[in-house]
Amino acid sequence: MIPGDGIGPEVVTEALKVLTEVVPNAEITKYDLGASRWHATGELLPESVLNELRQHDAILLGAVGDPSVPSGILERGLLLRLRFELDHHVNLRPGRLYPGVRSPLAAPGEVDMVVVREGTEGPYAGNGGLLRKDTEQEIATEVSVNTAFGIRRVVADAFARAERRPRKHLTLVHKTNVLEHAGSLWSRIVEEESLKHPDVTVAYSHVDAATIHLVTDPGRFDVIVTDNLFGDIITDLVAAVTGGIGLAASGNLDITRRNPSMFEPVHGSAPDIAGQNLADPTAAVLSVALLLDHLGEKEAARRIEASVAFDLATRDQNSPGSTQAIGDRLAALVSS
Amino acid sequence: MIPGDGIGPEVVTEALKVLTEVVPNAEITKYDLGASRWHATGELLPESVLNELRQHDAILLGAVGDPSVPSGILERGLLLRLRFELDHHVNLRPGRLYPGVRSPLAAPGEVDMVVVREGTEGPYAGNGGLLRKDTEQEIATEVSVNTAFGIRRVVADAFARAERRPRKHLTLVHKTNVLEHAGSLWSRIVEEESLKHPDVTVAYSHVDAATIHLVTDPGRFDVIVTDNLFGDIITDLVAAVTGGIGLAASGNLDITRRNPSMFEPVHGSAPDIAGQNLADPTAAVLSVALLLDHLGEKEAARRIEASVAFDLATRDQNSPGSTQAIGDRLAALVSS
Ligand SMILES: CC(C)[C@H](C(=O)O)[C@@H](O)C(=O)O
Ligand SMILES: CC(C)[C@H](C(=O)O)[C@@H](O)C(=O)O
Repeated sequence: MIPGDGIGPEVVTEALKVLTEVVPNAEITKYDLGASRWHATGELLPESVLNELRQHDAILLGAVGDPSVPSGILERGLLLRLRFELDHHVNLRPGRLYPGVRSPLAAPGEVDMVVVREGTEGPYAGNGGLLRKDTEQEIATEVSVNTAFGIRRVVADAFARAERRPRKHLTLVHKTNVLEHAGSLWSRIVEEESLKHPDVTVAYSHVDAATIHLVTDPGRFDVIVTDNLFGDIITDLVAAVTGGIGLAASGNLDITRRNPSMFEPVHGSAPDIAGQNLADPTAAVLSVALLLDHLGEKEAARRIEASVAFDLATRDQNSPGSTQAIGDRLAALVSS
Repeated sequence: MIPGDGIGPEVVTEALKVLTEVVPNAEITKYDLGASRWHATGELLPESVLNELRQHDAILLGAVGDPSVPSGILERGLLLRLRFELDHHVNLRPGRLYPGVRSPLAAPGEVDMVVVREGTEGPYAGNGGLLRKDTEQEIATEVSVNTAFGIRRVVADAFARAERRPRKHLTLVHKTNVLEHAGSLWSRIVEEESLKHPDVTVAYSHVDAATIHLVTDPGRFDVIVTDNLFGDIITDLVAAVTGGIGLAASGNLDITRRNPSMFEPVHGSAPDIAGQNLADPTAAVLSVALLLDHLGEKEAARRIEASVAFDLATRDQNSPGSTQAIGDRLAALVSS
C-alpha cells in the first residue's frame, strides 16, 4: 500500500477497511512514498523500495502530487516510474454509470464501458528534449514511441475482454488521419487481432470525435482500446460522465504477471480537500475490487462492487457522508 | 470558396447566400478541391491553385473527407497542407452556448469561451516514421515539434483576445506533468507574456482535467490557449457541449496577414447525410461572420451573429428545417 499525498492516505484507509472485511488474512505493508518523503530525503522511489514492491502480489496506491513539489516531479519520478518499471502495460479503466448516480449529462442512458489504455509507451515514453533553451530559437520535442510489441499486447487484451462481455464490441480511439505512422501501426494491429476474434465487432473513432460521442451517446461504447495519452484524456471524460472521479477506479496491469499490478483511483491528491474527511473513498474501494479480481478473488470482488452499487443507489446524493462514514457503510455492507 | 466534400457544398451555398446579403459586392471564386478532384486527377492541392488562393482576401472552406478516399489523404494533403502553407498559426474556435440551444449537459450554465489552438506545429508537424514495417519489431514514432516562435505568437494573440473580453481570463491547457519539454516551453512563454498583460488572470489546466471541467463547469473558461492536438480534441468537446458541431465555427488565421486566412465549420463532411438537404448550415454561416470580422467588416459580422442568435432562440429545436430553409431564414434575417 502506497497511501501517497493529499487525500490518498484518507481514501486508502477506507479501502483497506473494506479489503480486510472480505480478505481478513490479507498481509499489508505500507510504503511511505510521495511529497513528504521527497521533502525529507530527496527520494522518490529508491531501488530498495522498488525491489521490495516487486515481491508483493499487488499494490494499492492512493494518490500522488502536492502543490509544494514542482509539477511533474512526483508524477514522473514516482507514479509513471512505477508504471514503467513494473511494466504496467494495460491501464484498465472501467466506466460505468451506477443506478442512482448523477451524471452531468441530461440524458446519459446506460453506460457500461471499459477503457484499455496502453500504459508503457506512446507520448509517455519520456523521449524528447529542449534545444537552444531560453532563446527565441528554442525548440521542444516530445516523441511518441509506439511498438508493435507494445501495441499488440494491449490490443490482444482488449479483444479478450470484449469477447467476455455481452456486447462484444471494441472501439479503437486514435487520430489516424493526422498521426499517420502511429495510426497506421495501431490500425494494422487491431485489424490483425480482429481476425482472431471474429465474434467481436470493431469500430474506429478519432479521439476528437470520441469526446463528442462520450457526451452525446456514451452508451455506444463497450470496450475502448487506445494509446497512453488519448487514454489519459478520455478516461477523465468517461469518469466525469459516469458521476465524477470520486467514483472512477483503475488498474495498472502487467498481464504477464511478472510484476505486481497496481490499483489506484483515477482522481488525484486533491490538496484542496485533503485532511478534511471530505473525499469520497468509493473510487479507492472500487480499485480494491479490481485488485481482488486480478488476483482471482472473483467472489470478493463482486461482493465489493455489489456493495458499492447498493450504497450509490441508496445514499443521499447531495451529502453522501464523510470519507470515514462512506468507508464504514461499505465495510458493513460487504460483511453483511 | 472551397466547397469540398460531403455536406461541404450544401452548407457553403447557404453561407454564401448570407454573405452576399451583407456584402453584395463580394467577389467569389470557387475552387474544386477534394475527393472528386483527387479521384479524377490524383491532385490534392496543385501549386497553381495554392498560388491563386494566396491572392484572395480570405478562404471559406466547406468540409474535406470522403469514405472513398483512404483516411488521411485529403486531411493531410489538402486541409492541413492549406493550414501549413498559408501559415494559419491561430486556429480560432469560439464556443458559445446560444440562448435556446440544447446542450447535452443537464446544467451547462452560461458558456462563452474562445479556444486559441496553435495551428502549424506540435504533433501535427508530420515528423515521425516507421521502422521495421510489417515485422513484430516495428516501431512508429510521432514527433511533436514546438518552437518558441510558434508558441509565442499564438500565446500573444490569446492574451490580446483575453484583454479585449470582459472577464480577461486565460487558461493554458497542456499536459506539463508528463510532456515536460513541450510543457516547460509553453508554461514559460505563457508566464513571460503574462507580464505584458497584468490585467489578464491566468490559469492552467491539464488537458485530462480540462475535459472534466468542460462537462461539469464549462462557464469557468474564457480564453483557452493550447497546442494543436489538445486544441483539436477539446474543441470538439466544446462544440458538443455548446449544442453540437452543427453550430461550431472556426477560423484558421495568419495574424500577420501575409496569407489569406481560412474559415470553416468545425464539422466534417458527414457523408451519411450528404446531398439530403439535412445538414445545419449555421456553423458555416458563423464561419462567414468570423471571416468578415477578420477582414474588418465588424458591423456585417455582428449582424450575422445576431441573426443566428435570433434564429437559434426561435427555431423549433426538434426540427430546425432543411439546410436550405435555415439558409433562407438567416439570409432574410440579416437583410431585415
Ligand atoms: C498524474 C498523471 C501523470 C497521470 C497520467 O497522466 O497518467 C494521471 O492523469 C492518470 O490518468 O493517472
Ligand atoms: C480533419 C482533421 C485533420 C482536422 C484536425 O485534426 O485538425 C479536424 O479534426 C479539425 O479539427 O479541423
